Amino acid sequence: MLGNVFIGNGPVRAIVASGLWFVKNKSNQKAFTCFIASSAAVGYGLSRIAVADNAQAVQPINTDKFMGSPITSMEKIVANRDDMKIRMELLILRIQAEFCRALEAEETSGARFRVDRWQRKEGGGGISCVLQDGQVFEKAGVNISVVHGSLPPPAVAQMNARGKHLPEDKKLPFFAAGVSSVVHPTNPYVPTIHFNYRYFEVQDQDGRPQGWWFGGGTDLTPYYLNEQDARHFHSTLKGACDRHDRTYYSRFKKWCDDYFQVKHRGERRGVGGIFFDDINTPSKEKAFLFVESCAEAVVPSYLPLLRQHKDDGYGYAERQWQLLRRGRYVEFNLIYDRGTKFGLFTPGARYESILMSLPLTARWEYMHAPKAGSPEAKLTEVLKNPRDWV
Amino acid sequence: MLGNVFIGNGPVRAIVASGLWFVKNKSNQKAFTCFIASSAAVGYGLSRIAVADNAQAVQPINTDKFMGSPITSMEKIVANRDDMKIRMELLILRIQAEFCRALEAEETSGARFRVDRWQRKEGGGGISCVLQDGQVFEKAGVNISVVHGSLPPPAVAQMNARGKHLPEDKKLPFFAAGVSSVVHPTNPYVPTIHFNYRYFEVQDQDGRPQGWWFGGGTDLTPYYLNEQDARHFHSTLKGACDRHDRTYYSRFKKWCDDYFQVKHRGERRGVGGIFFDDINTPSKEKAFLFVESCAEAVVPSYLPLLRQHKDDGYGYAERQWQLLRRGRYVEFNLIYDRGTKFGLFTPGARYESILMSLPLTARWEYMHAPKAGSPEAKLTEVLKNPRDWV
Repeated sequence: MLGNVFIGNGPVRAIVASGLWFVKNKSNQKAFTCFIASSAAVGYGLSRIAVADNAQAVQPINTDKFMGSPITSMEKIVANRDDMKIRMELLILRIQAEFCRALEAEETSGARFRVDRWQRKEGGGGISCVLQDGQVFEKAGVNISVVHGSLPPPAVAQMNARGKHLPEDKKLPFFAAGVSSVVHPTNPYVPTIHFNYRYFEVQDQDGRPQGWWFGGGTDLTPYYLNEQDARHFHSTLKGACDRHDRTYYSRFKKWCDDYFQVKHRGERRGVGGIFFDDINTPSKEKAFLFVESCAEAVVPSYLPLLRQHKDDGYGYAERQWQLLRRGRYVEFNLIYDRGTKFGLFTPGARYESILMSLPLTARWEYMHAPKAGSPEAKLTEVLKNPRDWV
Repeated sequence: MLGNVFIGNGPVRAIVASGLWFVKNKSNQKAFTCFIASSAAVGYGLSRIAVADNAQAVQPINTDKFMGSPITSMEKIVANRDDMKIRMELLILRIQAEFCRALEAEETSGARFRVDRWQRKEGGGGISCVLQDGQVFEKAGVNISVVHGSLPPPAVAQMNARGKHLPEDKKLPFFAAGVSSVVHPTNPYVPTIHFNYRYFEVQDQDGRPQGWWFGGGTDLTPYYLNEQDARHFHSTLKGACDRHDRTYYSRFKKWCDDYFQVKHRGERRGVGGIFFDDINTPSKEKAFLFVESCAEAVVPSYLPLLRQHKDDGYGYAERQWQLLRRGRYVEFNLIYDRGTKFGLFTPGARYESILMSLPLTARWEYMHAPKAGSPEAKLTEVLKNPRDWV
């Protein structure tokens, strides 16, 4: 296979060889950090391409280590390598794979992620990875989706209510790519983690971007408060933020506390983290690099907690408390979470991927209240009154 | 204690004696069927009153058998005996008590309903009865609430969207009284039942009714389909409807199928029953009597199913399926149910009473699908394609 493909603005000649290589250009400060190991099991249309002409510098892209083949065709990926849509797709594919592999390495039962690659009739698709009923993980889900189509008018109205200025009278083409994950570990001393990073683009009728923004966050939901864990988690996120803007962490920490509220109970879902939306400054490039840093901070923020507590001893009472708290998690996700509601109300949504965030088991006891002074009461206190951790 | 209280339109003399008696008037075709047994443990302000003067006919009212004292003061109850607000309050107090007693009689562990009487700061209150962790009942809740205050503008907008013509620019006094119940039995062969009957009044600034309506319904959520059970349940509800209007059952059966949809899954919550709202014809009196018939049909529609199956043998697989279906129940209640959302979004709402509808335990498995031809698949089929049962 030999042919002309387009990279950036100029045609270059591509040779099928032992890897997919790109011309590194100046705007692409960080291209790809992974390397193709083998293309045997992938089955992509174009699994390995090397740019021979015009190759000042080439960067390999490892598609093999992804949990599934990209949603966008390799031809399009190669031809639009510098487009933010493609860069975001490749980022979320990499983050998904890195997180899944990191979790699998901790799972002692031999259970592995089930991988479902799905297509969306209206445009695009996704890859859902779920590990269920393991020894270390009761349920862990890591999804990516790369979708496009026309925004339904209620979605446009919702965006305008958030300060956008989009026309509400005509069909609005959009593109969205995101990675989203929730991990519910078995051991009540290991917190649940959630993260989600996404890029959104609204286009004109010719597909040119009319508006774009990034959103996302990472937050922690412990069942028992371990202050050292909370400090490590927040410090790691703060580090990722500080590399880009010294004001980010404190703003996005507060945003997280404000967003993850189980309002009817007057509680936060957990000890927070960071949360942001509608980020379109200082530039598309810089916003992307910030989101990339956040997404790369997930593993170092969480894995130490998981490793430290996954074998902690616990009993029936701790398990029952964990199940009750999981009930609160369900309440937040089904009643308040914008993403869940937006997803479920979108016709043709893959509800199994949206609802993978729900725990395997949850419990609701009428009028449950932890005993004063108990570890359960200590957690509840911090859920009612969020603290600063760094 | 001796004093003047008002019944209907004229003052009568009340004597504290061994019961609370009312002058029966013609419009009150069915007054009270219960009788006071003892007032010892009740602690009402006025627990026993007999009307001595003007007593063409007297009807006893049994306040002692209620799960708690009425929300409205006995003085007001006596003074406004013919007011629909009072009649509805007394009806739901009776229905709550009758249903709780009927369930307790089936519970073999000795567990009894916990009774919480609560006040609402903004006006009114309620009685929540919950039996949890029994042998026969995993969780059963039976609530009444009698509340009044000012409707928040979003609630008025929601009502106008349903065809009301209420002014949206000023505070609108309202009154609402209802009974609401969900029973999650332990045995997977006993269906979950839900019912709710309510009266709503919107008032002008002087408290005069500007608009009123009744709503409610009873519906069944089996874990395994038993066609005979479904027929008995629907026939009993149809009987209650037919006594008032031969068109009611088919209309309200369809309304129920339409309302209790877990839309993202393309499933109904269960095998339905009846559901209606905004009933204000043919007259307030007749609408009340219809609602009364429906509420009285709950016990005969459900108790035979409970008695027949509460000791059926079952194993791990049936329990797991029941937990999965309970997850679907949670999805409906938290995502779609108007009453739950309206309740939780009302400032000062007693969320424990609203969320008593949630099961003690629920489960979410990623991509679960029942085996073709299995009893679980048979149920799923009827949830996707509702049937006629009578």
